[in-house]
Amino acid sequence: MPRQVTFEQRVEFGDCDPVGIVWFPNYFRWLDAASRHFFISCGIPPWRTTLAERGIVGTPLVSSNATFSSPVSYDDVLLIETEVREWGRKRFMQHHRVLRLSSCGDAPQLVMEADETRVFAGYQEGRLRAIPIPADYLAQCS
Amino acid sequence: MPRQVTFEQRVEFGDCDPVGIVWFPNYFRWLDAASRHFFISCGIPPWRTTLAERGIVGTPLVSSNATFSSPVSYDDVLLIETEVREWGRKRFMQHHRVLRLSSCGDAPQLVMEADETRVFAGYQEGRLRAIPIPADYLAQCS
Amino acid sequence: MPRQVTFEQRVEFGDCDPVGIVWFPNYFRWLDAASRHFFISCGIPPWRTTLAERGIVGTPLVSSNATFSSPVSYDDVLLIETEVREWGRKRFMQHHRVLRLSSCGDAPQLVMEADETRVFAGYQEGRLRAIPIPADYLAQCS
Amino acid sequence: MPRQVTFEQRVEFGDCDPVGIVWFPNYFRWLDAASRHFFISCGIPPWRTTLAERGIVGTPLVSSNATFSSPVSYDDVLLIETEVREWGRKRFMQHHRVLRLSSCGDAPQLVMEADETRVFAGYQEGRLRAIPIPADYLAQCS
Repeated sequence: MPRQVTFEQRVEFGDCDPVGIVWFPNYFRWLDAASRHFFISCGIPPWRTTLAERGIVGTPLVSSNATFSSPVSYDDVLLIETEVREWGRKRFMQHHRVLRLSSCGDAPQLVMEADETRVFAGYQEGRLRAIPIPADYLAQCS
Repeated sequence: MPRQVTFEQRVEFGDCDPVGIVWFPNYFRWLDAASRHFFISCGIPPWRTTLAERGIVGTPLVSSNATFSSPVSYDDVLLIETEVREWGRKRFMQHHRVLRLSSCGDAPQLVMEADETRVFAGYQEGRLRAIPIPADYLAQCS
Repeated sequence: MPRQVTFEQRVEFGDCDPVGIVWFPNYFRWLDAASRHFFISCGIPPWRTTLAERGIVGTPLVSSNATFSSPVSYDDVLLIETEVREWGRKRFMQHHRVLRLSSCGDAPQLVMEADETRVFAGYQEGRLRAIPIPADYLAQCS
Repeated sequence: MPRQVTFEQRVEFGDCDPVGIVWFPNYFRWLDAASRHFFISCGIPPWRTTLAERGIVGTPLVSSNATFSSPVSYDDVLLIETEVREWGRKRFMQHHRVLRLSSCGDAPQLVMEADETRVFAGYQEGRLRAIPIPADYLAQCS
């Protein structure tokens, strides 16, 4: 079983659009936070530290694939369950399930789901490039 | 050939993250604007008008599929070429190509590409639901 | 002593700019959330309910006055202490103190402070207008 | 007369809140862009260049003072007129007037106004500090 990390996110008034529901780019803001917290919770240092120590700036997105199944509004609380489903040589696929907590004791409801393909990146000859996934990171995160 | 509409977007300092490149959720902000401008340029009224006249709140996203191929930074100017590649009964698939204009006369470079599946939605019995694509909208946009 | 409500806000990577510090418009996003949570914690219902029941859409901003004293970065945790310092007939002045929690046990540090003048607003003859502050709200919030 | 630079900003659907009007933190995003464009139009290079050449990271905000006079919604086009009203030794005060273009030929309407006190900043001994305003910048911008 892959390691799973849960991230909690309140939805605010300003996250919602004129329809009164979450404006979808905000989900990607929250997925990015959940992605980073996954690594923090595995013991990987913040990107400012990995940059200073190893030249790694973070995990830029290569591609994403998302499905939206139910609208969400302010005062909703979301749980984002994040895991890495595939580790390649340079790429990994992080999966996020976004659930809305019920205010009346029902089971959390899936509202959005996404796969993100990301890489660890660093500067080489002035250009940002994917690097092979560091073996110690892989060991810490599996 | 499907109708294609081009939307221009400047990249600002605040759109960029600590790496100095566009923080990816901002692309989804711009795609959403490009998606709406496609309909405006087809002669569909703003959503506040479609809501008042026909109960249509806009075109919420059902799923998206995006690929990021090159980093972008502030002062870059992006062109987003948008077209509808498939019209279903309720769903349609909008395709966006995001190109960076060259400052030295080279051809624009593809930096991001996305498919978005969207629906026209309205409230029915207090819930937001997809409606069949209006025939006049289909005629105006094809 | 006016009632004081505290709101906690994590700072994320994507809240930071190319300098690596919080991009200042994000503080205003957080103040707006803190402002709303103040009213929620006083027992005022969410704006969607006040709109349905009494035609009140929320508390739009009339003016703001902010001072930034220390940069903040991702992984910092902020506490926003919010209180209403003046109640007028239509306007009220909400004050926010934004403190950064120390990770090493020191006292929280003030990083930003703001006064916001707001009104309760509703639609009258199709236009958004300030309304006199409802007496029951005033009683609940003092 | 101080030099004045005008910056144009479209308002998008996603810039608006559940009331259907611009969520106010977005004004600060646009002011920040207008502030930077003022310097670009004076011939000051982008901050990535000033950082590389002179250690200047940009112009962080010290304080701001804003007044909001009329709501704005999507499809509105804003003009932001920016000028520097005071130059101190380290601080300067930038003033922004935000006007909404009329779609029916009337004069643009003032919708928001703000003073921003900013500094040029650089790293000194690992900390971000205000530096004296460079004489050549002052000459270029006056």
